[in-house]
Amino acid sequence: MSPLNARRGIVKQGDERARVGIVMGSDSDWPTMEAAAQALKEFGIAFEADVVSAHRMPTEMIDYGRTAHERGLEVIIAGAGGAAHLPGMLAAVTPLPVIGVPVPLKYLDGMDSLLSIAQMPAGVPVATVAIGNARNAGLLAVRILATGDSGLTRRMVEFQDELRAAAQAKGEKVRAATNGA
Amino acid sequence: MSPLNARRGIVKQGDERARVGIVMGSDSDWPTMEAAAQALKEFGIAFEADVVSAHRMPTEMIDYGRTAHERGLEVIIAGAGGAAHLPGMLAAVTPLPVIGVPVPLKYLDGMDSLLSIAQMPAGVPVATVAIGNARNAGLLAVRILATGDSGLTRRMVEFQDELRAAAQAKGEKVRAATNGA
Amino acid sequence: MSPLNARRGIVKQGDERARVGIVMGSDSDWPTMEAAAQALKEFGIAFEADVVSAHRMPTEMIDYGRTAHERGLEVIIAGAGGAAHLPGMLAAVTPLPVIGVPVPLKYLDGMDSLLSIAQMPAGVPVATVAIGNARNAGLLAVRILATGDSGLTRRMVEFQDELRAAAQAKGEKVRAATNGA
Amino acid sequence: MSPLNARRGIVKQGDERARVGIVMGSDSDWPTMEAAAQALKEFGIAFEADVVSAHRMPTEMIDYGRTAHERGLEVIIAGAGGAAHLPGMLAAVTPLPVIGVPVPLKYLDGMDSLLSIAQMPAGVPVATVAIGNARNAGLLAVRILATGDSGLTRRMVEFQDELRAAAQAKGEKVRAATNGA
Amino acid sequence: MSPLNARRGIVKQGDERARVGIVMGSDSDWPTMEAAAQALKEFGIAFEADVVSAHRMPTEMIDYGRTAHERGLEVIIAGAGGAAHLPGMLAAVTPLPVIGVPVPLKYLDGMDSLLSIAQMPAGVPVATVAIGNARNAGLLAVRILATGDSGLTRRMVEFQDELRAAAQAKGEKVRAATNGA
Amino acid sequence: MSPLNARRGIVKQGDERARVGIVMGSDSDWPTMEAAAQALKEFGIAFEADVVSAHRMPTEMIDYGRTAHERGLEVIIAGAGGAAHLPGMLAAVTPLPVIGVPVPLKYLDGMDSLLSIAQMPAGVPVATVAIGNARNAGLLAVRILATGDSGLTRRMVEFQDELRAAAQAKGEKVRAATNGA
Amino acid sequence: MSPLNARRGIVKQGDERARVGIVMGSDSDWPTMEAAAQALKEFGIAFEADVVSAHRMPTEMIDYGRTAHERGLEVIIAGAGGAAHLPGMLAAVTPLPVIGVPVPLKYLDGMDSLLSIAQMPAGVPVATVAIGNARNAGLLAVRILATGDSGLTRRMVEFQDELRAAAQAKGEKVRAATNGA
Amino acid sequence: MSPLNARRGIVKQGDERARVGIVMGSDSDWPTMEAAAQALKEFGIAFEADVVSAHRMPTEMIDYGRTAHERGLEVIIAGAGGAAHLPGMLAAVTPLPVIGVPVPLKYLDGMDSLLSIAQMPAGVPVATVAIGNARNAGLLAVRILATGDSGLTRRMVEFQDELRAAAQAKGEKVRAATNGA
Repeated sequence: MSPLNARRGIVKQGDERARVGIVMGSDSDWPTMEAAAQALKEFGIAFEADVVSAHRMPTEMIDYGRTAHERGLEVIIAGAGGAAHLPGMLAAVTPLPVIGVPVPLKYLDGMDSLLSIAQMPAGVPVATVAIGNARNAGLLAVRILATGDSGLTRRMVEFQDELRAAAQAKGEKVRAATNGA
Repeated sequence: MSPLNARRGIVKQGDERARVGIVMGSDSDWPTMEAAAQALKEFGIAFEADVVSAHRMPTEMIDYGRTAHERGLEVIIAGAGGAAHLPGMLAAVTPLPVIGVPVPLKYLDGMDSLLSIAQMPAGVPVATVAIGNARNAGLLAVRILATGDSGLTRRMVEFQDELRAAAQAKGEKVRAATNGA
Repeated sequence: MSPLNARRGIVKQGDERARVGIVMGSDSDWPTMEAAAQALKEFGIAFEADVVSAHRMPTEMIDYGRTAHERGLEVIIAGAGGAAHLPGMLAAVTPLPVIGVPVPLKYLDGMDSLLSIAQMPAGVPVATVAIGNARNAGLLAVRILATGDSGLTRRMVEFQDELRAAAQAKGEKVRAATNGA
Repeated sequence: MSPLNARRGIVKQGDERARVGIVMGSDSDWPTMEAAAQALKEFGIAFEADVVSAHRMPTEMIDYGRTAHERGLEVIIAGAGGAAHLPGMLAAVTPLPVIGVPVPLKYLDGMDSLLSIAQMPAGVPVATVAIGNARNAGLLAVRILATGDSGLTRRMVEFQDELRAAAQAKGEKVRAATNGA
Repeated sequence: MSPLNARRGIVKQGDERARVGIVMGSDSDWPTMEAAAQALKEFGIAFEADVVSAHRMPTEMIDYGRTAHERGLEVIIAGAGGAAHLPGMLAAVTPLPVIGVPVPLKYLDGMDSLLSIAQMPAGVPVATVAIGNARNAGLLAVRILATGDSGLTRRMVEFQDELRAAAQAKGEKVRAATNGA
Repeated sequence: MSPLNARRGIVKQGDERARVGIVMGSDSDWPTMEAAAQALKEFGIAFEADVVSAHRMPTEMIDYGRTAHERGLEVIIAGAGGAAHLPGMLAAVTPLPVIGVPVPLKYLDGMDSLLSIAQMPAGVPVATVAIGNARNAGLLAVRILATGDSGLTRRMVEFQDELRAAAQAKGEKVRAATNGA
Repeated sequence: MSPLNARRGIVKQGDERARVGIVMGSDSDWPTMEAAAQALKEFGIAFEADVVSAHRMPTEMIDYGRTAHERGLEVIIAGAGGAAHLPGMLAAVTPLPVIGVPVPLKYLDGMDSLLSIAQMPAGVPVATVAIGNARNAGLLAVRILATGDSGLTRRMVEFQDELRAAAQAKGEKVRAATNGA
Repeated sequence: MSPLNARRGIVKQGDERARVGIVMGSDSDWPTMEAAAQALKEFGIAFEADVVSAHRMPTEMIDYGRTAHERGLEVIIAGAGGAAHLPGMLAAVTPLPVIGVPVPLKYLDGMDSLLSIAQMPAGVPVATVAIGNARNAGLLAVRILATGDSGLTRRMVEFQDELRAAAQAKGEKVRAATNGA
């Protein structure tokens, strides 16, 4: 067992095999990326999370991507900022769908991250979500896993119903503010 | 059978049920979007293609999205340009993964399309690919379908090998140019 | 009476039928959008305000737009941020003029909102105002309603006179600062 | 009769009083702006069109704006490119709704025009449409005029039905291309 | 004497006729614009300052520009933000050189202001300085006035010598920090 | 006489001492920059023109700037593209007003040129005109020279009258197009 | 000898060991990148050139970078477009200086390439040159090699003298055009 | 000994001749630029640091660049913001490799600095690093110096190993957060 695998061995949720791998270039990305983990938990999807830097750990990164589908992962979520190479490089070495989260850094509001992740060449797609929106990366992973799982599809439909209900409830505040004016 | 379904009834590839729906706001998007269809053909994935405009056919668009998973679609690919609302609106009414292709229009080089598709709010993800890169949308759909299909995963690995071989072959031209100089 | 209508029933200003509908994707947009309400109040225009999310309540959103002119609304003001689809989708389902307010979110300073709202395809116009400038949306609604109302036109001319007077008064501060230097 | 009025006297459509004024900074904007005129013709709205440059004819521009509502105009459509000041300046001197069309010039793809028109200060709104999209300016003018005209509202609903039918018809080409592949 | 002139009558520096007019759209621009006044004071150039809004006081603005050279002004400095029309409109009605200061507003960091001021059409130039850099507007005015004043030119050369000396002195801090490290 | 001066000796217009120096980084900028020369000719202002590259001829560039006011130049117009350093560097070594023309290169539409020229630090102003708009640089130079020359001011007022007349004449084409429709 | 090395074995210039490696993601980048080769030839620097794609040949790319300094390369020049990961990934696996050339693709004028190459995280620098400017990448490689080679430094100083002479010669055209006018 | 040299004489690290010169336009850039000094210290590279402003001390700047290689410098690191001319101007007068650090100023997040530094014309390269990333400038200087120094190359390889180890250690935090969830 490689050190990388050993380290990752402890991050599974409960006893289940992780189906989604959440990786990021640095632990400073975690405050952004944990929303992806949260979304997966809400849908009961086992996942692992780790720091896998394309620029600082290139060998481990390649190894992570290349073995991902053999280790049982079905989707990879990768967050990165600036010249964000992690999602694209993982997509180059895995046949799995890779979801890229543009992490905004101190300057440019994540526009560099967005372009570095989204503008991949033909042949190697990355599923890019909104700047800083790791929750959507988690939800996109759920949708992908649901393509072969009617129960999960049903759960996603319910989730969308809940979104609607929550949005409707938010109208109260606006209506009250208006009414009282 | 609604007129919309009747129209779509004829676009299946061979006798297979379509697994991927390719939609776009106008037939002027087709020159961009047909690369998605081509990628799916290379992997033998049955698909349907149609014009479904969020702005000009909103009812049909909602209907298309809402019934997509019941009709057997597993992934939707949506291309749109400018204030590109089609991918995001479909994602709002289907539990399926929706892949958005930012179609570049006459001005702004597709930057408006990219932002209109990628910058979705939390709760409703769209898997955005590069500007004008519908081929990657098709390949991403294949990767998504391959999560539950080891044969398709194997085929994707082979495809990646072919990409490598083709890239290596391209080196000839550069090496020759260099050598002869 | 649909739940949506019931909810909206309470938000009218006094006893008058609402002539302008102010909608937004989330109550977090209200701090931006209430300036539109304020402008309408200054001109004595009855309005309603509500949360109507294109992405979280698509059916209600379509319903809202489609019935708006039948319910007596004459103008819709819609605020949204990021991949801001609400103004454009409402414009697709109503014959009324729709005014879009690009709400700035955490990143990109509202540039994504501006492009997502302004860059509509031919056939479906949205009247876009400045980023975060809901007050101008309210004033534009007043100008629109004034096209058939000479009293309101007169009031707008007076308002413009007041703007001028206020701007002139502001000069005092600058002149004083200069003079005392 | 001022020379400016005399010149404009000949541009009315048939015998009707012009309800919409279409103005632009230069005749080089006409290829962009005539789509606004075309849209108005389709709805039978009488209009006038002229060159009124904020930078080269400031007095006439102010005069045009200030007298517009007295001359019977109900909406002004103004197209301008680069540091596009015409729509905003007209909005400053008329109580009428002013629709701004960002005309793309040789460089920057109309992004300068869009920002110069849309980013108006509080108090003086301009209804901005998409870059180069004068057709939408015309259609927005129709929607505005329709707020007090149920027949015109009905015509706009029909127009939206026609848009839908045309979009549906465009699907044929895509479906045929797919089918034959 | 018009009310505008009366108001401006009190802002002259000492007894001298103002040679430079500093104007801005609102007193909220003064914290940015006062650096222009400060620069002029350092060179002993008499100036006036006032709020002259293109959008809220269009008549006074036109009047200000049109009479400026007759009142003895030789240069106009105009600051504005967003859809910044003031510098360009003044340039349209005065033969004097107009210096534009792009004032950054809450969003977009002054990029809209820069483009709205700089991108003027052929025939009507505005001398644009850096975003928020009113000091440079003042210094540019000094250089312009110095073209016909060898004493002022000499003073500008001395000022540049002082800039050099100050920059050299700043090196101490860096060298000390380095040395002590 | 330095070689540089010798070379420049031949470019004066007629026998007059040049009052404006037009310089550019390369002869490839001339198609853009000659519009500045044309504007000066229309006003009878003597000028010289030369290639003075900040990056390829730094010594000559510094020398050009440093001696400019001693040689009798009153204004410098400098065009440059990309990392456009020429206007700013000249402004650093001359007390004269320097007008910068952002020359658009093959990529980025001159946005890099605009920012490199406009965003000068406090102390060293450059009067920036629109991207590619050398004609306005010439006209701005005329306005600067006119500050001390009432005849030239009068000529500029006439020029502005001619601009107005030309703009009014352009209206014919638009009105005719409208009328015939 | 690995196939990759075998392939590269033939591209050396004459009999010399290559000191600079020029790599690019595709042979479609060669028209841009050959200017780097040309610059190296002018200085007599032996180089090799090849296609090494980060996304299509990740293993070979890592291998190329990791062995580069052992094979005797001293500098790597890498060109890539869009989500341009090649320069940054090579920098991650080699201790050599890596020069990145942002190759402009069909959309966005190379802005995505520039940001993807320049915005590297702390620890892994890439020396980025201008969009599409591979000649400067070659010249930068020469400067780097010259740090330990006084002959090459002398040659670079001569080259800069030649640049100056060429720029001065270009002035003829401008001066002639001016003179004849 | 010129005053400039005298001043710089005291900034050497210990007794060693400085091999790298770190310069910046103002001491306000030092908080950004000192990270370059820190990186050089970590590798034991002697350096000097100073304020050398292109715009405020042009003669000294030219002198600094022109004498740099004679004084024994091998690499120059130059930081500048806004219309950042320092790196490019130094590159114009020295045969040494010049590394440019785009310093972000109050507005535009360093995008103006990046373009002003990176977009150099053919013939005069600047090695541009990320916005505000002076640490990478220092590390790039180390890589350049290491091209002729196998010990330094070895040290850089070790540094990259340390980067990897640090990145792996950062994974702990993420894994713990995940596990505990």
